[in-house]
Amino acid sequence: MNNYVRIFDTTLRDGEQSPGATMTSAEKLEVARALARLGVDIIEAGFPAASPDDLEAVRRIAVEVGNPIGVESLPAHNRRPIICGLARATRGDIDKAWEAIKPAARPRIHTFLATSEIHMRHKLKMDPEQVIERVAEMVAYAKHLCDDVEFSPEDAGRSDPEFLYVVLAEAIKAGATTLNIPDTVGYTTPTEFGDLIAGVMKNVPGVDNVIVSVHCHDDLGLATANTLAGIHAGARQAEVTINGIGERAGNTSLEEIVMALHTRKPVFNLRTGIDTTQIMRLSKLVSNYTGIAVQPNKAIVGANAFAHEAGIHQDGMLKHHLTYEIMRPETVGVTHTKLVLGKHSGRHALKTRLTELGYALTDGELDKAFERFKALADKKKMIADADLEAIISDQIYQPREIFMLDGMQVTCGTMGMPTATVRLICPDGTTRVEAAIGTGPVDAVYKAIDTIVQAPNTLLEFAIHAITEGIDAQGEVTVRIEGRNGHTTHLDAQRETQTPRTFGGHGSDTDIIVASAKAYLSALNKLLVASGKYGEPELVAEVAGAD
Amino acid sequence: MNNYVRIFDTTLRDGEQSPGATMTSAEKLEVARALARLGVDIIEAGFPAASPDDLEAVRRIAVEVGNPIGVESLPAHNRRPIICGLARATRGDIDKAWEAIKPAARPRIHTFLATSEIHMRHKLKMDPEQVIERVAEMVAYAKHLCDDVEFSPEDAGRSDPEFLYVVLAEAIKAGATTLNIPDTVGYTTPTEFGDLIAGVMKNVPGVDNVIVSVHCHDDLGLATANTLAGIHAGARQAEVTINGIGERAGNTSLEEIVMALHTRKPVFNLRTGIDTTQIMRLSKLVSNYTGIAVQPNKAIVGANAFAHEAGIHQDGMLKHHLTYEIMRPETVGVTHTKLVLGKHSGRHALKTRLTELGYALTDGELDKAFERFKALADKKKMIADADLEAIISDQIYQPREIFMLDGMQVTCGTMGMPTATVRLICPDGTTRVEAAIGTGPVDAVYKAIDTIVQAPNTLLEFAIHAITEGIDAQGEVTVRIEGRNGHTTHLDAQRETQTPRTFGGHGSDTDIIVASAKAYLSALNKLLVASGKYGEPELVAEVAGAD
Repeated sequence: MNNYVRIFDTTLRDGEQSPGATMTSAEKLEVARALARLGVDIIEAGFPAASPDDLEAVRRIAVEVGNPIGVESLPAHNRRPIICGLARATRGDIDKAWEAIKPAARPRIHTFLATSEIHMRHKLKMDPEQVIERVAEMVAYAKHLCDDVEFSPEDAGRSDPEFLYVVLAEAIKAGATTLNIPDTVGYTTPTEFGDLIAGVMKNVPGVDNVIVSVHCHDDLGLATANTLAGIHAGARQAEVTINGIGERAGNTSLEEIVMALHTRKPVFNLRTGIDTTQIMRLSKLVSNYTGIAVQPNKAIVGANAFAHEAGIHQDGMLKHHLTYEIMRPETVGVTHTKLVLGKHSGRHALKTRLTELGYALTDGELDKAFERFKALADKKKMIADADLEAIISDQIYQPREIFMLDGMQVTCGTMGMPTATVRLICPDGTTRVEAAIGTGPVDAVYKAIDTIVQAPNTLLEFAIHAITEGIDAQGEVTVRIEGRNGHTTHLDAQRETQTPRTFGGHGSDTDIIVASAKAYLSALNKLLVASGKYGEPELVAEVAGAD
Repeated sequence: MNNYVRIFDTTLRDGEQSPGATMTSAEKLEVARALARLGVDIIEAGFPAASPDDLEAVRRIAVEVGNPIGVESLPAHNRRPIICGLARATRGDIDKAWEAIKPAARPRIHTFLATSEIHMRHKLKMDPEQVIERVAEMVAYAKHLCDDVEFSPEDAGRSDPEFLYVVLAEAIKAGATTLNIPDTVGYTTPTEFGDLIAGVMKNVPGVDNVIVSVHCHDDLGLATANTLAGIHAGARQAEVTINGIGERAGNTSLEEIVMALHTRKPVFNLRTGIDTTQIMRLSKLVSNYTGIAVQPNKAIVGANAFAHEAGIHQDGMLKHHLTYEIMRPETVGVTHTKLVLGKHSGRHALKTRLTELGYALTDGELDKAFERFKALADKKKMIADADLEAIISDQIYQPREIFMLDGMQVTCGTMGMPTATVRLICPDGTTRVEAAIGTGPVDAVYKAIDTIVQAPNTLLEFAIHAITEGIDAQGEVTVRIEGRNGHTTHLDAQRETQTPRTFGGHGSDTDIIVASAKAYLSALNKLLVASGKYGEPELVAEVAGAD
């Protein structure tokens, strides 16, 4: 059996289903570009039937990342990842998926139908024969559009194996080229899941001619072990997300699978196409865009994962680095050269460092970034890579600015009423100033903004963290809001229902109250764009770096 | 073989070794009490040889949690967990451990020595024969003090199995009653680790008369699977921490092991003594005290783990709750009755709710909590359980207050220089006011505080999160600082070196700048107490609720 394991990244599809992980099209495109640089084999770019926005976001990725021209700034081997779109087992969904992905050089349609007793009865209300029939019909339909078809029997982990074999055999006969076995609810143990895959490898007629894939969830903390057990049993594709984000306890972490295979190579004797030194960058990018924090004790990408190397200086503590370390931080792109630029660094130095960090900016974008950089360097002596990354994500990949912060001042403390004055530039170009009192400075600022913007919403989450160490650090604020007007919903692929869309925003500044205002405005602007009140949601022409 | 798995919690020992997880003695005691309520079988309370403070903290837990009198407010079965102290394989360490734990009704000494080639050569500089001899000698020494002796061959996961069997047999002969097999560096796969335990069960003479234990780390994301594989192979003790905290990627999560055994009972056919409904409370308590956040996609205890139940209202989304859910949120203590108290709630209502939440406060503590509660209710319409928990952790279990916040005011924004004025009550009872300018409002406040307190330190971490949903939420700030004077170090058990101590602080307020000031002062007060400049570090007499 071939020892190459395909990495199928579903950060943009299953990962984005995490509450609040909604990304703008521009953010999704940037993540897709970074995933291509990381070397993933397949990018599941979204669920095009969810909404016209989702379809357009997938299409842009197909155009710009799924073709050589979209990755011209990438390493010499010039990867073109397969671009995949999800579709329920219906003609409508499959048509939309195809419309979105067909511009890619290597498109894939991924369709699914549940095969567990509980899902067939309570969700599909179909009997097993109807399920078999539908799978055969819809895989064949997808196949007549696209050579590369993946089929997933949803909730396979709780399905009757004998029935599963029959369904999978039908999918192969109808033209499926990849069979993905999901443990949808994160219910299985490694032994069970390994046995399930071994059973599929042994009992499904025609399985030798297709790729078997595994897709696990972490509800019991076993996603990584289950995925490895599946690969050990013969699967050659792993479906994963960056930082393990996803619904509930999330999906299998890309970084854990890749680094387990890498670190224990003699045990597994398997390889992937991943450039491990890009892992940390992707982790930060996805955490920034989704607002989903990575806990310090997260394997591979947590802030403490390599704490004995970075951080505190402890002379002679490690008599031999391998005593307490099984991999080198450099391998996953944790760099020690934290302090790189300062007040006197010029535009060229900034550009060089940004290129080293993997950002390919246009001249216009670089100008904006340089302006931000100089402003920050006036306040902060040394500018770290993390500061630069915050500038880029904050400045360049913002949503369209409907309302813009023009100025603000705040007074607060233990003695009185926290009071904020905010001045915004409105969509019509006029400037408005409002003052408000709140329970705290952020509350006061948000109330003043609300008075001007008038977009009713519920604040679901608010978090601040310091980007860099030290007391003069930049603070980064992430917020998540949900619109109250019901315009902004999208279709959930698995539950077949419209769910309210939530919008994340982030902002950074050395003043955390200013950062809070920026974050809130960025989330509000996303909400306003999605509501369609201010023109077409993000036109293709606006894509950063598309030219 | 007996089907009862002992849960050995090492949150207070291995968990506290996480960077910045340093807890005060009062916090440790509160965690130990909560662990007893949770129903853990063994509490590893610390490493008494690390410092006199550490010894005293373990002793207090032995006195107050290791005896029936310390748990009188607990359920009828009136548990007395075993209280365990860690010791390197030296007489000095073992004596100190014994001194600390002997007040417990059921004390245990846990001693360890490395058995892997790399550790023996580079760390111990001992040959295998010397290791065998030392183990036999020190286990016997511990045994003459204490009936219950646990021995761990450090880095067992990378040790030669044949050598391991010999060492373990010697430990049994010398009187060890529990043999703990640690995968110290988180290197093994579930198959390897299961095989290792199976080998121990089969090849170590006398193993039938002792308990075999497993202790895994999550560097490759496999701690939970490895622990379950070890239990499957015959181990009947699992060493775990709340939220999986610990060095690097952390230890095995208590909640994942317990809930895997619980949710998949027919597969494992094993039981624990854990009251699962206490899990969420412990998770929050430990996260609050250590300042180590839990990521939203963490299994069992992450904010999104049950997101489809709590949070957003989605009518009819779940046609049958088991379609996408393998356990009920109530099982781990996620409650839906979030809003419980308001402005008009009295002292009695507060007391009742706090008792329901598991807090047993003295009258004096309740008075303080009620005062805070009323102040908060003036600003915030509805007080959630999370608000109450913040009040308790913020107000009751603070370190001794050397410097106290008396008042502050701050002005900031986009236009000028963020400026703070801070008034503190000093240890001598006088009041001092200072003003400072900073890069942001928090920086300005911290600079003003520094001018008064004069305790040189480095700010390692700063984080703010909202305790409750909504724009009028309380903000909770956690900070971590490291003293610059070198007085505050403690001994690292495994590396045998003095490491700098870091101090976490937390504060909550509806004004996040005020919360930031409180958090910083709380960390500074811990630093000052530990430096010994302001009298004895935390006397026993100060223990909350000791009487």
